[in-house]
Amino acid sequence: MSILVINAGSSSLKFGLFDAEAQQTLATGLIDWRVNPQQAELAIHPSGGEPICSRESITDHRTAVLHAVNKLSSLSSFYPSHSGGDKGEREAAPAVTMVGHRVVHGGTRFHEPVRIDANVKKEIAQLVELAPLHNPAALEAIEAAESVLPHVPHVAAFDTSFFASLEPRAYVYPAPYTWFHAWGIRRFGFHGISHAYCAGRAAELMNRQPPELRLIVCHLGNGCSVSAIRSGRAVQTSMGFTPLEGLMMGTRVGSLDPGILLYVQRQKKLSVDQVDHALNHESGLLGISGVSSDYRQVKAAADEGDERARLALTIFADRIRATIGAYAVALGGVDAVVFTAGIGEHAADLRAAVCEGLQILGLRLDVSRNAACTPDADIACPDSPGRILVIRTQEELMIAREILKRGG
Amino acid sequence: MSILVINAGSSSLKFGLFDAEAQQTLATGLIDWRVNPQQAELAIHPSGGEPICSRESITDHRTAVLHAVNKLSSLSSFYPSHSGGDKGEREAAPAVTMVGHRVVHGGTRFHEPVRIDANVKKEIAQLVELAPLHNPAALEAIEAAESVLPHVPHVAAFDTSFFASLEPRAYVYPAPYTWFHAWGIRRFGFHGISHAYCAGRAAELMNRQPPELRLIVCHLGNGCSVSAIRSGRAVQTSMGFTPLEGLMMGTRVGSLDPGILLYVQRQKKLSVDQVDHALNHESGLLGISGVSSDYRQVKAAADEGDERARLALTIFADRIRATIGAYAVALGGVDAVVFTAGIGEHAADLRAAVCEGLQILGLRLDVSRNAACTPDADIACPDSPGRILVIRTQEELMIAREILKRGG
Repeated sequence: MSILVINAGSSSLKFGLFDAEAQQTLATGLIDWRVNPQQAELAIHPSGGEPICSRESITDHRTAVLHAVNKLSSLSSFYPSHSGGDKGEREAAPAVTMVGHRVVHGGTRFHEPVRIDANVKKEIAQLVELAPLHNPAALEAIEAAESVLPHVPHVAAFDTSFFASLEPRAYVYPAPYTWFHAWGIRRFGFHGISHAYCAGRAAELMNRQPPELRLIVCHLGNGCSVSAIRSGRAVQTSMGFTPLEGLMMGTRVGSLDPGILLYVQRQKKLSVDQVDHALNHESGLLGISGVSSDYRQVKAAADEGDERARLALTIFADRIRATIGAYAVALGGVDAVVFTAGIGEHAADLRAAVCEGLQILGLRLDVSRNAACTPDADIACPDSPGRILVIRTQEELMIAREILKRGG
Repeated sequence: MSILVINAGSSSLKFGLFDAEAQQTLATGLIDWRVNPQQAELAIHPSGGEPICSRESITDHRTAVLHAVNKLSSLSSFYPSHSGGDKGEREAAPAVTMVGHRVVHGGTRFHEPVRIDANVKKEIAQLVELAPLHNPAALEAIEAAESVLPHVPHVAAFDTSFFASLEPRAYVYPAPYTWFHAWGIRRFGFHGISHAYCAGRAAELMNRQPPELRLIVCHLGNGCSVSAIRSGRAVQTSMGFTPLEGLMMGTRVGSLDPGILLYVQRQKKLSVDQVDHALNHESGLLGISGVSSDYRQVKAAADEGDERARLALTIFADRIRATIGAYAVALGGVDAVVFTAGIGEHAADLRAAVCEGLQILGLRLDVSRNAACTPDADIACPDSPGRILVIRTQEELMIAREILKRGG
């Protein structure tokens, strides 16, 4: 028995196959058609096996799902080992017993994984207004997966669910109350599956129980967010009503003086669409550096002396550090800070920059451990009062666990 | 010799008369026509004397300045004590030897007080686009004061100057670089005169030299801002390109997910003017509580059990505490936190709420000292590693000092 998890990004599809009983990863995969839809990159990494790579023509989530299922079905784990060697029989009885789908926005409606039916799809579609880039992709992936795996339950897990535990003090904005009451404008928070996975994994690594811990998790990838977690429950998070708020990101501005939006519309005659594009796609690391939205490229430019690239990295780290400081006082102390996702897992220099100044919170980085780290790892000094952890996030595994717990 | 300082607010005029040599306050005054321009309240407090109060018909800054000078001229200190008792002679030789004016926005042009001439007025006028409410009031007050005190130098002191020491990492936004480079969109910071005064006064109260100190000053009045100060120089501040950013205020929203502005314009069809009005005048304490923008009234409602008023106070304190945490890690530690301005000086409950959680920064509030405090006072526990100070801000005195230092 295995679980297939599908994670539809804006122009990519991540997926994973998991053993349902041992909750172990059988294979993970990625299809990415951001750069060239005619030559989309497909890569599958079976656990303990050789990677399977190919290039395919993929322009949408439907085609991506079909390719993913097709390639996975060549793996023995996709089918039950006891079903014999006959291909016809294997196709009739795939071992995938459940499919999990990551859906970015669950609004206030979905606080936990839910079995997908026509009503659920309708409700996910109604939330498209709140997540115009993400929820449509998830819906397309769901329908494609339903068509190729029609006889198994499909379950949706939401990126917002982990933040259902936020209290009003954390999700109400000091805007006119009708914006909240009548229009539903409140903080939702995103990357919840990753934050939840890291909170659980941090407790494991520390040999502590979640109820004892005050954690700050920094998810630093293309999108970036920080959450404060007490007793396993989120109490603060930096992304808000939309994934544009909070930290500076690859191309997103993060939190910004709202007076600037008013100014550029009035004085510089920018349209709402132009402001949207500028703040979502031309800002962040790319905006300041002018070099790239990719942390590695900005770092390379900074190393060669590019001043704007250096400034971009400094401000990127400053904003993460500031949020850690803000959340540490909200928690009244911090037992561990976690770095995760692409940048968090790989950029030792960024982790070092962020940790400068955190000594007053009892967080002391071990410079050589940080430089040599292979996640999952503890990179704090042995005698540091608080731990500093680097954790490889595993969103698909977390979805598999959550939907198993839910019972499908 | 005395110095007259004029501080033009949006619908009020504060002023002060100061002894130039002893740098002591001779009188302070306020004219306020926000509530009723036909019955504007005028109050003058001569040092050691009885207050002079009256109601006047005042609808603009010009009339307000004329009333202020007229009332002050009835005080002996307005004229030199050696100029004899003859009224005619006194009028011919007023002791006011310099007039200081507070100007909110000095842009990147004015980093220190400057003697006002036609060019300076032109440059202040050019900054009206950046401070549409405030700079026109200052210009009107300057011209009125010049007309009644034509033979003395008039000097402008700017609310932004204290933040001229910010480094690019503190003033560059992660927006498209052209917004900064071509349009000048950067963090300026406001309330600088108050932050600078409090930094100096904190050092006095602590018997320390400014270069030794890492301070966080919370200016909490109608407008609210926090600054981080190292060695007497500002390194961070919460107000930005406009005074809308940062903390939640009486009617201002403070920092907000920029995605919300895009959403309400697109989906709720609000115009830029409507968004501006909502975020500047219908948000903050007023927005969440629905009761009032006045802290005391929101507090009274909360004390009677009003849930929204309670939530407003909680979020107000949360945001201040979060900013203190953010700045403490930026400074690598904090020697003192300062509370100042109307709310900061008077709301003991707010100070107590903010200080919950700051223990990890070495800031331990003495509950009874806080409750009994009359500014200027230290309200930290005697053995607290860092001090918690309440300081009555004296912007007019600070302006007098600055323009004296400048030499007019």
